[in-house]
Amino acid sequence: STQPKKDSVFSNRGMTLEDDINETNAYYLSRNLAVIHKKPVPVQIVRVDYPARSAAVIKEAYFRQASTTDYNGVYKGKYIDFEAKETNNTTSFPLKNFHAHQIAHMKQVGEHGGIAFVIIRFSKTDELFFLPFYALNRFWERMHDGGRKSITKAELADCSAALKLGLSPRIPFLNAVDAVYF
Amino acid sequence: STQPKKDSVFSNRGMTLEDDINETNAYYLSRNLAVIHKKPVPVQIVRVDYPARSAAVIKEAYFRQASTTDYNGVYKGKYIDFEAKETNNTTSFPLKNFHAHQIAHMKQVGEHGGIAFVIIRFSKTDELFFLPFYALNRFWERMHDGGRKSITKAELADCSAALKLGLSPRIPFLNAVDAVYF
Ligand SMILES: [Mg+2]
Ligand SMILES: [Mg+2]
Repeated sequence: STQPKKDSVFSNRGMTLEDDINETNAYYLSRNLAVIHKKPVPVQIVRVDYPARSAAVIKEAYFRQASTTDYNGVYKGKYIDFEAKETNNTTSFPLKNFHAHQIAHMKQVGEHGGIAFVIIRFSKTDELFFLPFYALNRFWERMHDGGRKSITKAELADCSAALKLGLSPRIPFLNAVDAVYF
Repeated sequence: STQPKKDSVFSNRGMTLEDDINETNAYYLSRNLAVIHKKPVPVQIVRVDYPARSAAVIKEAYFRQASTTDYNGVYKGKYIDFEAKETNNTTSFPLKNFHAHQIAHMKQVGEHGGIAFVIIRFSKTDELFFLPFYALNRFWERMHDGGRKSITKAELADCSAALKLGLSPRIPFLNAVDAVYF
């Protein structure tokens, strides 16, 4: 196999980052630690059939671009808002994975006293990074000033809080929230 | 017409409560007062076609029951979470408009220091009520103790904060949030 050696003791079992975060949020909710949910995928519904005696069927719909982020909720009285991103790259994280309106949204959240961050996974190595929005924004602005269009792994390591794949919860991101914001 | 006399100077122009709240949230965002968005309608996607050279088309999908509420976001550093409900009833608001998991969700939000409430509109008269979750919960528990299955308009008036249909914003609910929670 050409797969690089995993750097975590827990493999990702083929689960997506989203699956793992959903499982983590369910864990946090069940332990009464936080109330955080994935937002539904936004779709534009064009045609719906209403068959007699059975559920309405959506027959034509289109994916819309999300105007905000993947997850939000409340933790220790604070508004939490974050985006999860996976990449198959191995050396850097491409900033084109973000849309400008997602960046604008996270900036607004910060301005109103909310906590905004991103969780990045390098899929080939199961490496996780918890990057606060204020750090991401510096790389975003560097790109807009003509600088590089990605964040190197060394830069991520410098600016991120520790986040290691676990067993339960899978992605213990509240530890990083505590370390950075509380 | 059998339509009762409107009790507000602004008519609802046939807009749904949801339309009005979306417009209100856009107003609040544009004035940099709060960051609050409607959650997308949750759908379970079963079949998607990927035509060559055009956008993916969802060909079969079903509406899922929302596990949380309609709206959430951040205001003055606080997590905000609310549900909007319209009724054609004229004398009381039927509690069957809420699902048990929506009540459970709003209770969790309160326990974690978030602000949870509902906005109720009596469609025939354009009357609006801003009901904090802790007040709603008393009526919900009364029902579960064998009491009435609705909230009378007099009870709503007693327990609600003032909220009048306006021009811009249409549903100035942050005034009520200020009055009740700040
Ligand atoms: Mg994502
Ligand atoms: Mg609703």
